[in-house]
Amino acid sequence: MTVMQKIEEVRDSRWFSNLTTLIIIAYACILGFKTLDEVESEYDFFLNFADHFVTVYFVFELAIKMVSEKKFLNFFKSGWNIFDFVIVVITLLPLESSSFAAIARLMRVFRILRLFTARPELKSIIDMLIKAIPSIIDIVILMFIIFYIYAIIGSFFFVDLPSGLWKDFLISMLTLFRVLTFEDWTDVMYEAMEVYPWAWVYFVSFVIIAAFVFFNLFVAVIIGEMQKLQESEMKDEIHADSLKLDLLIDEIKALREEVKELKEKDK
Amino acid sequence: MTVMQKIEEVRDSRWFSNLTTLIIIAYACILGFKTLDEVESEYDFFLNFADHFVTVYFVFELAIKMVSEKKFLNFFKSGWNIFDFVIVVITLLPLESSSFAAIARLMRVFRILRLFTARPELKSIIDMLIKAIPSIIDIVILMFIIFYIYAIIGSFFFVDLPSGLWKDFLISMLTLFRVLTFEDWTDVMYEAMEVYPWAWVYFVSFVIIAAFVFFNLFVAVIIGEMQKLQESEMKDEIHADSLKLDLLIDEIKALREEVKELKEKDK
Amino acid sequence: MTVMQKIEEVRDSRWFSNLTTLIIIAYACILGFKTLDEVESEYDFFLNFADHFVTVYFVFELAIKMVSEKKFLNFFKSGWNIFDFVIVVITLLPLESSSFAAIARLMRVFRILRLFTARPELKSIIDMLIKAIPSIIDIVILMFIIFYIYAIIGSFFFVDLPSGLWKDFLISMLTLFRVLTFEDWTDVMYEAMEVYPWAWVYFVSFVIIAAFVFFNLFVAVIIGEMQKLQESEMKDEIHADSLKLDLLIDEIKALREEVKELKEKDK
Amino acid sequence: MTVMQKIEEVRDSRWFSNLTTLIIIAYACILGFKTLDEVESEYDFFLNFADHFVTVYFVFELAIKMVSEKKFLNFFKSGWNIFDFVIVVITLLPLESSSFAAIARLMRVFRILRLFTARPELKSIIDMLIKAIPSIIDIVILMFIIFYIYAIIGSFFFVDLPSGLWKDFLISMLTLFRVLTFEDWTDVMYEAMEVYPWAWVYFVSFVIIAAFVFFNLFVAVIIGEMQKLQESEMKDEIHADSLKLDLLIDEIKALREEVKELKEKDK
Repeated sequence: MTVMQKIEEVRDSRWFSNLTTLIIIAYACILGFKTLDEVESEYDFFLNFADHFVTVYFVFELAIKMVSEKKFLNFFKSGWNIFDFVIVVITLLPLESSSFAAIARLMRVFRILRLFTARPELKSIIDMLIKAIPSIIDIVILMFIIFYIYAIIGSFFFVDLPSGLWKDFLISMLTLFRVLTFEDWTDVMYEAMEVYPWAWVYFVSFVIIAAFVFFNLFVAVIIGEMQKLQESEMKDEIHADSLKLDLLIDEIKALREEVKELKEKDK
Repeated sequence: MTVMQKIEEVRDSRWFSNLTTLIIIAYACILGFKTLDEVESEYDFFLNFADHFVTVYFVFELAIKMVSEKKFLNFFKSGWNIFDFVIVVITLLPLESSSFAAIARLMRVFRILRLFTARPELKSIIDMLIKAIPSIIDIVILMFIIFYIYAIIGSFFFVDLPSGLWKDFLISMLTLFRVLTFEDWTDVMYEAMEVYPWAWVYFVSFVIIAAFVFFNLFVAVIIGEMQKLQESEMKDEIHADSLKLDLLIDEIKALREEVKELKEKDK
Repeated sequence: MTVMQKIEEVRDSRWFSNLTTLIIIAYACILGFKTLDEVESEYDFFLNFADHFVTVYFVFELAIKMVSEKKFLNFFKSGWNIFDFVIVVITLLPLESSSFAAIARLMRVFRILRLFTARPELKSIIDMLIKAIPSIIDIVILMFIIFYIYAIIGSFFFVDLPSGLWKDFLISMLTLFRVLTFEDWTDVMYEAMEVYPWAWVYFVSFVIIAAFVFFNLFVAVIIGEMQKLQESEMKDEIHADSLKLDLLIDEIKALREEVKELKEKDK
Repeated sequence: MTVMQKIEEVRDSRWFSNLTTLIIIAYACILGFKTLDEVESEYDFFLNFADHFVTVYFVFELAIKMVSEKKFLNFFKSGWNIFDFVIVVITLLPLESSSFAAIARLMRVFRILRLFTARPELKSIIDMLIKAIPSIIDIVILMFIIFYIYAIIGSFFFVDLPSGLWKDFLISMLTLFRVLTFEDWTDVMYEAMEVYPWAWVYFVSFVIIAAFVFFNLFVAVIIGEMQKLQESEMKDEIHADSLKLDLLIDEIKALREEVKELKEKDK
């Protein structure tokens, strides 16, 4: 067994991914603990140590993954590897003492995203979520059209309302998003109704249309998934049965032919 | 290749629908941008130009679609064509300088609706949504009955509450719609409970009944869609298998008959 | 054709049910219109007329339904007939001039419920909703247990909070129902956290547990309905296919037996 | 029939479980009634009596269940029995007069949890809910990562906001949970936008991402349950059909072989 094989074995082993998961979670806890008010600054040393340890561990882990590839560039063929690489490189940049120090410290939080690559189950959920996007893209466009029209109308009529919720197009979009989540939407409506008594038509129609579209999005996705499920699983077996039946019919026809010949010979 | 065929080719080509989509989106951005506070009036010229350009382009596009029909009146047989036609005609009306100028300017926003006809995917979603309406119409009637009864009772008992939320029948309906979206519904309830301590029965029962009906609407639609799905796809194949089996049974019976004859001859 | 048959024909005809629907809706509109602020009392005469007309029409319609039964008591065997009967009788009671006058006037609103019996589609939706109740009864009991335990704990710890939202057991239940609908639940929580800093555990756990149970209720109902659907429709056909296959196997075995006999005779 | 058999019969009888259910519900009502403001302290005697009665009944019921096992330790092999045992033992502890008196009194409320073991239907729902947990565990982890990252970012930028909603990591988590339930989330956003105008990106992205993940969780669970359903029920029958078809094909091939032999002999 060569060194190469051993490295590959380590990379694919469950304990290695579990160790990485554990280190990331421990690091996440320390980071979260750090923000608690009561924690004195004397623990800073501990955090710094954890920080450097995780940096070294990540570089080490990345090195193992890179070395274990037969060709170096194969490493960059997987989207998840690039994801790992970018996170590690970003946290390696020597920004700590520069004017970007605060941002650099914040960047550390994205290290927890490495949990995705450490746990295969999470990786597959993310893949599933990404795969679900195209099936809803057109409904997102539809939603945007609804938002757009209502935002233009809203910022046309309600622009001068004292709350400033319809000051311009973008703020109107934000206000409509708020209405969609039902968050104090009646306050927005009552304010508009004081000036335009018919404003309830605008709000109630928006709530119903947006909810109806959203609701259909839901049904569409579930039905779409069901269809895929049925196509891939049961239909295969039913189709196989159908082919077997065709075979049977051919066999029996051939058999009848032979029996007929037998009968004719008998005559 | 005649001119006619060329026009038809242009009309059905993907790049033509993509160009229309792009122009509509660009126009939508300019319209939205226009409402931003910071935009100076010197950009008005730009907006006017875009406005006239889109008007001309729409007329041009409509003309292509009209000309490419063999019979002129066939154009109006498609609901989507009428939809396009109405939008273009409305924005052509010379209202800019009249007293309806403001309204006319607002009408321009509906041009974005032409995205539906420019993108076939959106067209089919809209068709799907429209098809979904009949399957929920009876639950909408049911919802209305619930709203109606609660609105009458509410405007009977709570008419004199200081908030004026139950002033008359229509306002009571609006208040109940608010309660259905859970928007500050307890404020409405607590106010009523100060005068009628049993008012919580009214509100809690409304929330539970309306949510229960709504919830069943959801389940009913999903189940209905599943049924259609199963009927159209797998059942066809299973039914075909069933017919093949009938054929097989007939074949085998015929075969047995022949073998029996053979045996009798043998004797 | 006897008079009896003619009455029966009228009772089952679509136009009779449509007429009833129309009259109920017209009456509902008048009732709703009546509560509007601007309507002068001179229209009272009109309302009174509509009121008496609907009373007479309902009695007339009920009479037709009763007469058309072969045995008078069969009429009361249908739950929907009893429902109709009760609504008509209640509105016939001469309470208008008594001290219950206000209540009597309110009772009229329940006449709109007769839409259920006038429109067969609504009747079947209500039947469906009633049938759906048993499948969720146990989850309702579970929900009640969760509410009960949280209400007892809440009214034990938070009884002295100034808002009085936990004053006694029943009010605590109402407050928890409010928390379940997410209606200003953080206000309730922040108030409790001022006295008991750990109170967020109580609220967050309640929200998560109640939502999780509710969510599973949803899934359980959908899955249950699917199961019924599959059992009743496709399984029948698949089962029929299975029986046909058994028949085929028997047939072929018999055929082989006969061919074997043929062979033996040949020797 | 021995005494042992009789005890076992009592334990498994429906009336015994119904009696237990009734006693628990009656006790729950008394407990709830006790917290009502208007109830005078003279009813304390009644509550005390009920308390002791239920304690005795529970010990008695537990004894029956223990005695009816062939081996005493088998009793503790069922999780539900341990659950019963712990609840009964806790309420037996003589804490009433100690400093833990208040807590001890509160402990009594958990006796209502014994409804789970008294009603088999509830037991199976709880078992179902517990079984549903693993299928969502990874999405819960994903949710936690989203919460974690947003909480760290939030407590980094918004730590000094006057409302104190982002004071430290844990409070930020609580605030984000509130945003997830859409509870006054715009108040939180508007406060942050006053200092950081771009803050709406943070909130809107959180709402959309968290809702999208949650939504997919829903779909995933429903699809997963459907898959189990289909696998266990219809697939069995379809698979059985497939095996029968294989058998048929073998039979017919053998039959053809025999007919061929017959033909050759005939020559």
